[in-house]
This record gives sequence, C-alpha cells and structure tokens, in this order.
Amino acid sequence: MSDHKITGVFSAAATPLNADNSPDLGLFTEHCRRLLQEGCHGVALLGTTGEANSFSSGERRAILEAALKAGVPADKLLPGTGVVAIPETVELTKHALSLGVTKVVMLPPFYYKGVSDDGLFAAYSQVLEKVADNRLQVVLYHIPQVSGVPLSIPLIGRLIEAFPDTVVGIKESAGDFNNMQAIIAAYPGFSVLAGADPLLLPLLKAGGAGCITATSNLVADSLRTVYEKVHDEAHAGEVEAAQVRINVYRTLSNSYVQIPTIKAMVGLKTGNAAWKRTRAPLMPISDADHAALSQAYAKLPQGARP
Amino acid sequence: MSDHKITGVFSAAATPLNADNSPDLGLFTEHCRRLLQEGCHGVALLGTTGEANSFSSGERRAILEAALKAGVPADKLLPGTGVVAIPETVELTKHALSLGVTKVVMLPPFYYKGVSDDGLFAAYSQVLEKVADNRLQVVLYHIPQVSGVPLSIPLIGRLIEAFPDTVVGIKESAGDFNNMQAIIAAYPGFSVLAGADPLLLPLLKAGGAGCITATSNLVADSLRTVYEKVHDEAHAGEVEAAQVRINVYRTLSNSYVQIPTIKAMVGLKTGNAAWKRTRAPLMPISDADHAALSQAYAKLPQGARP
Repeated sequence: MSDHKITGVFSAAATPLNADNSPDLGLFTEHCRRLLQEGCHGVALLGTTGEANSFSSGERRAILEAALKAGVPADKLLPGTGVVAIPETVELTKHALSLGVTKVVMLPPFYYKGVSDDGLFAAYSQVLEKVADNRLQVVLYHIPQVSGVPLSIPLIGRLIEAFPDTVVGIKESAGDFNNMQAIIAAYPGFSVLAGADPLLLPLLKAGGAGCITATSNLVADSLRTVYEKVHDEAHAGEVEAAQVRINVYRTLSNSYVQIPTIKAMVGLKTGNAAWKRTRAPLMPISDADHAALSQAYAKLPQGARP
Repeated sequence: MSDHKITGVFSAAATPLNADNSPDLGLFTEHCRRLLQEGCHGVALLGTTGEANSFSSGERRAILEAALKAGVPADKLLPGTGVVAIPETVELTKHALSLGVTKVVMLPPFYYKGVSDDGLFAAYSQVLEKVADNRLQVVLYHIPQVSGVPLSIPLIGRLIEAFPDTVVGIKESAGDFNNMQAIIAAYPGFSVLAGADPLLLPLLKAGGAGCITATSNLVADSLRTVYEKVHDEAHAGEVEAAQVRINVYRTLSNSYVQIPTIKAMVGLKTGNAAWKRTRAPLMPISDADHAALSQAYAKLPQGARP
C-alpha cells in the first residue's frame, strides 16, 4: 500500500452542538485530539456524520479553524469541502488551503439527480481549475444513498487522468465491496477508503488504502489495530477480534438512526450528554431509545488504547 | 379560489448565464419582464428550473436584487430561499424580506434522506422562528424526485397549524394529482400550486390555486388563458386548446434533459443562443440535439399574447 497518497484510519468526526445548536468548538476540538490519541491517522471532519451540510459556510470555516487553533496538525485534517454550488466548493477548498490544510473530501454537487458523467466531470474540473493549487489532494466522496449522486468508475478514471496529482482517492460509502474492488483494479495506486467500518479488513486485504468511518468516533483503537496488523499473519486473531469489536459497535449504532446514535454513544463514552444534540433535520434519539442504548452500550467490549 | 393567499400563474424562471458561467443579470431581468407581459402573475425565480442551488448565496442575492432594480415589483417575485443549511435559509429569507419581497418558495433541507417528519418540522419551524417576520408567506416545495425529501400530508398540516399566517401554500412538483387532491381536501384555503404544466387545468377544476412551472418560460400566455377562463363554460374550447398547446411544449422540452432544453427553447423563442448555457452539473444539450430541437420547435403552435 506504500504507493497510496492517502492511507490510514480517518474518523468521520461527529460535531457536538451547544444548547443553541451552534457548533461546540471546545468539545469538538477535544474530540479531535482524542480521536488522534486513540489511533486515527487523521480526522475527516465536516462529512456526513459531521452534519457538515447542516452548517453554514461560516460555521464550517469556524469548525476547521478551531481544530487548527487547538493544535490539531493541518496534515491530519481532511475537511469536507464539496457543497451544492461550485463557487462555494471553490471557496471552502481555498479556505482550507489558506490554512495549510491540503487534503479534502469532496462531494459532487448533489441537488440535481440523474446528471451525466459529463456534467459531474465538468463540475469537479471547474472546481479544481478555479482552486488551482498544486498542493491540493482530493478524496472523491461516493455516498449515493445520501447524496443521490453516484460517482461511476469511468468518471473516476476521467478525473484521475485529468488531475493525476490532485484526485488521489475515494471515500466509498455505498458499502459496495464489488465497487471498491473494481476501482482498485481499474486504477492502481488510487486510494480507496471504506466508508463502512465492517469493510475495513476485507478492503485492506484487497489492496484498499484505509477507511473514513463513523464508528471510528468510538473504536478508533480497534480500527488502527486492523490497519496496522492486517498483513501480519502472527496477529491474525487479534485483527479478527478487533474487526469483530468494530462491527459490534457499528451494529448497535445502526439499531437507531445512525448519526444521532453515534453522537449519543460518544456522549456515553465520554460522560457528556451534550453530545446527544443534533441539528435539524436530524433529531436526537428519543429518551426511551437512549435508555435502551445506554444499557446496550454498557455491555459492549471496551478498548485497550490509549 | 378567492380564499387562497397565493394564486395565479407563476413562472419557474430559468436563469441565463454569461460566457464565464456567471448569471447574466441583464438578460434575466429582461426575461422576467417578458414573463409578466406574457401573462404570468409572478416570477418564481431561483427554483429548480432556475438552477438556484448551483449558485452561491451571493449570486442568489444579486439575481433577486437585479430583478427589483430592473423594475419588477417586489410583490410579483417569489424567490426560492430554502437551502441545505438552516442558517443560510434564514439568511436568504431575511434578505428577500429586507428588499420587500414577502413571498418565498422553500425547499426542506435536502442533504439527508429518510429524515422524519419531526426533523423536517423542526427544520422549517426553526427557520420561521428565526426569520420572525409576520409579512412572510411561504410556499412549501415538494419535489421529491430531485430533493429526495418528500413533504408528507401530516407534516404540511403540522406546519399550517403552527404557522397559519405564514405557511400558505405548496408547490407540488411530484406531478402526483392524487396527492394534490388530498392536500386540497385536508387543508381548505391552503394554496396548492402545480409544478407540472399538464396538471394546471385539472388542478384548477379541483380547487387548486395555480401553478409554478417550467413551461411558463415559453407559453405563459396559454397558462394564463387556462387560469382565467377555467370556470367559464363559454370558453371551454379555448381553455382546452390552451392546455393542449402547453402540453405540446412540455412534451418537446422533456424529449431531452428538461432544464437545458427549456433554456435552449427560450433561446429559440428569443433568438439568443446565450440561453443554451447551463451551470454544471447540468450540461447544455448537444449540437445534434439542438438542431433537432430547432426543427421541432419551429413547428410548434405560436401564441397570441402579447
């Protein structure tokens, strides 16, 4: 995997809120530092789990700036900068670069559905040509069940060919292992990152580059174990056990609406109920569900790190 | 229909672009004036046909301001102000109100899919409570095939009950006549506006309030005829003929990708090829398709007004 430009365990970090629904920057940066301590190579903030598209452009900038100000190194941050309008994707990407953050995760424009590959190629191309910064490394973001806009394998190839030093990877959040394998086969050296935690181990075995996942908010240590030891036969049992632990957390988080449940579980892990808050249209899980979640959470296997 | 707070023929106005993809404000305001001259009661700018979500917040403001500056009366403008993040929906709605524009069309937040009615109610409620302006009249925007976020009949009812003077109508762009009838039956006085041109006549007969449609960019005169004379038996033949003409234009525009084709047809109507331009991810129709469209367009029945 040494030829991957982006490789490792990245957290699709959740964003805690204050009582007035503004981002809780202090609690967020504390969370980022904890994720790195627990084993993440980096923090993919402002993604789907991070409720990025529910924040204004100004709030997004403030969240990224807060992480840097709190001492999180720029090279460990992968903010989402792809929004629905090209000019604003350009602005957010330039803002990240202006702070020394050179890796971003980029959604396609996601309002119109059924758009052509030509249209998506034009959208990404226009963004990259307007940003025009050779430091930039872009992870494409394929999450059709949310965005409604899949990124086809030919489209990925056209983007790699046109921007070989910039378009370096993809977050495959459709959870489609066949698609991940097909991308790896088609574009050697291009970094395929799993968006679904259960696929980290099989993806690494198949030549993938790592993951950007939600469960990493809870079990970064186990994800790191899988990543570090996947190719070491002597640790096969430990790796399998770590993947099982990841899957158990993932299954529990998917027992209710996933993002609010991940946030509630971070609250249980850290003893801070403020984590339960979500921004509309996402709603916190109900009190009854939270009580049941608490009981189930208490029975989960705890981690070793840090 | 006299109890409707919003009633009439409104154009889902297309937005022309300059060669650099910026909005062509001069051509746009000329288009707005023509739409009113041709029979529209108002212009629902910055909707799906208007590619609103492909423009930055600043561009959206500039487009609205240009229409006012060009003399389009504020009470004839219904801008789309619903975007994906609540704070920006609040800002765009306040901006319209600051200019004296009190009627808006509002999408729900459209990134997350499968969200609950509670979540959508919370999102709309937070917007309306933060805007806090009793002049505001909101047309909800139901276009699930694009937004991915349907507005259920119970949700509509909760919003009407909570904000009876503000939530006054809905643009039903799913093209589901049963749904339109069910909304009319459930909420008398609430304005149901057809988003699909072929449904204007049946909707008006069923107690609907009018339309906000794309084909109005081309045949506002015929839509106005249907609206004015639908309840006058003496003009039944004229009304039927007008609806047939509308449908013929609509069918041709749907022979290719709809929004680029509507724009190309406005270009054919006005003799200005600049209208062909679209902003990515939408692409202009191909030269071959444009040639075929031109031939078909030349055979369409022309209008009487003005």
